[in-house]
Amino acid sequence: MDFAEARSQFPVLERQAYLNAGSNGPLPRAAVEAAQAWLERDLAQGRSGMPYIDELAGLREQVRVGFAEVVGASPEQIALTDSTTRGCQIVVAGLGLAAGDEVVTTDEEHFGLLGPLHASGARVVVTSADEDAVLAAVTPGTRLIAVSHVLWTTGRRLDIARLQEPGVPVLVDGAQSAGAIPGDLTGADYFTISAQKWLCAPEPTGALFVREPERLPVVLPSYFAMTAHEQDGSYAARDGARRFDSGWLAGPILSGIVASLACHPEWRYERAAEMAARCRALLEPLVEVVTPPGHSTLVSFRPEGDPGELVRSLDERGVVVREIPGHGVVRASCGWWTSEDDLERLADGLS
Amino acid sequence: MDFAEARSQFPVLERQAYLNAGSNGPLPRAAVEAAQAWLERDLAQGRSGMPYIDELAGLREQVRVGFAEVVGASPEQIALTDSTTRGCQIVVAGLGLAAGDEVVTTDEEHFGLLGPLHASGARVVVTSADEDAVLAAVTPGTRLIAVSHVLWTTGRRLDIARLQEPGVPVLVDGAQSAGAIPGDLTGADYFTISAQKWLCAPEPTGALFVREPERLPVVLPSYFAMTAHEQDGSYAARDGARRFDSGWLAGPILSGIVASLACHPEWRYERAAEMAARCRALLEPLVEVVTPPGHSTLVSFRPEGDPGELVRSLDERGVVVREIPGHGVVRASCGWWTSEDDLERLADGLS
Repeated sequence: MDFAEARSQFPVLERQAYLNAGSNGPLPRAAVEAAQAWLERDLAQGRSGMPYIDELAGLREQVRVGFAEVVGASPEQIALTDSTTRGCQIVVAGLGLAAGDEVVTTDEEHFGLLGPLHASGARVVVTSADEDAVLAAVTPGTRLIAVSHVLWTTGRRLDIARLQEPGVPVLVDGAQSAGAIPGDLTGADYFTISAQKWLCAPEPTGALFVREPERLPVVLPSYFAMTAHEQDGSYAARDGARRFDSGWLAGPILSGIVASLACHPEWRYERAAEMAARCRALLEPLVEVVTPPGHSTLVSFRPEGDPGELVRSLDERGVVVREIPGHGVVRASCGWWTSEDDLERLADGLS
Repeated sequence: MDFAEARSQFPVLERQAYLNAGSNGPLPRAAVEAAQAWLERDLAQGRSGMPYIDELAGLREQVRVGFAEVVGASPEQIALTDSTTRGCQIVVAGLGLAAGDEVVTTDEEHFGLLGPLHASGARVVVTSADEDAVLAAVTPGTRLIAVSHVLWTTGRRLDIARLQEPGVPVLVDGAQSAGAIPGDLTGADYFTISAQKWLCAPEPTGALFVREPERLPVVLPSYFAMTAHEQDGSYAARDGARRFDSGWLAGPILSGIVASLACHPEWRYERAAEMAARCRALLEPLVEVVTPPGHSTLVSFRPEGDPGELVRSLDERGVVVREIPGHGVVRASCGWWTSEDDLERLADGLS
């Protein structure tokens, strides 16, 4: 698949310089058509019966295999969720974090990770977004290191493999990583996937990688946690990370994810990295770029004027980026689908 | 809206005697068209920008008001969830149930309620599905009574107003109640809604009623829990039950729910009750009906032969019902949309 053909899967790119996959990726036509076809079928044939349930179960496994391939895991280590938030909830609840425990995180994290950490009652120790600072904050009371792979604010990538302390598991928020940069789970005990961003899937969808599923208690079970249960709710757990599946996923969503996972060309990561580098090269003469070179597919920059106003004025020119509230920066998301022209339109809007 | 017109909203009813709203309701054409139109829009215009976010926030509030009307609550008491399971998780986590606590439930509950109860570590005390038995099982160690309004197995309706013990909150699984029988929250501190069943909405969707939202800790926060947050995840909570909203809901889903909530005629509850009574009258000469008269819109019965085989043979005749595994019963769901002919087709299949 060449670039023009691959890019043509996304109708939104015909009219916009859509540079916001870090919020929600562009949708490929095939995903929307698959979802619409399932809706038609549900409308005409109803939503029940064993063949129906079996078909959806098959789609779940197809999606599980797809997510596993993206991050380089076994399907047995992948739970289907509806978001990174849910993945973080599952891990925090499973570890039984409570008052008296400590968790180390950075000062650049998203609420999808921070909210569950705070709600656990553990003391949340906040360091600068730097591997050494994270390691320096670990104490004998630390029960978890919880950080992003790629920071949603600055686009900086943390070297997760370095964050190793004996007996301290590592939870990685992979929302800005999975599908954007090559899968690398080195050092991660838990890793969340947000499928609606760089994987271009319908929202809200995602997954959770659990390195050793049998070692994490299931505290938020859904119907999919078990193969059989007793009247008091005790149950036989499903094999592997399936036991953490967070709930039902409808046919339109599942078939949409399958189509989205199939839309990405082999050269996805190389080209996305190239476009991020090209974006940086175009912006550096114009604004202060805060993303370190070579880290991710995000390019965050500090405009001279008000970031919100800039986002709105760019939007009027058909250039879609976003502000990171409270940080004074604007963030452009560069995918493999991004064209030179998209980036020039952004640069034109800044000059 | 007369019966023929109201029923004609559901294409599946043209070909099937679809009697399985207790699993998933029939979808109205307007809901599918709304979801498809949103998908088209997301495809062509992308999924980002403040006007987009604001429009979805408005749809969320419209859906919240709709669910509140169904159960007779204030919108301030309604959290948007994706399932009854999620609602039960939110309550069980919020109450901080743990080893040493007791929870009283019945021997006819769904895993969506039982799973979270068991996972809490509390002792799950199982009684027969009867108000007196539930009350008799309450001890000084009881932290929660957790039961269904309408039992998914037998269709029996419990009188929640009777289940009052000082200091013991009541969590009600309303999956087979909301939209099927008139809303009645008397005696319920927490009440779950499954929108994909009797409200005929896309799945997975639902809500959680919380009588006093400020009194329940938020243990499973999503992005919607807060209006602003600090770097350690501490935050200013949103007003009312919005703080329990379990996560993002996409435009196709939200617009589908709005359309589904609008499809129900004023005479919905009267006619659904009539059809359940008519179903019972037709079945009683043929099989042992286990649902007590006048309780709900479910009609469960014990066939002479194998329930699974019966469900399959009925399906071949275009009559859609389901087996309740482990109970030896088959369950027919009667909605306001059910016709006399649908019920006669079921009776014909049994005789």
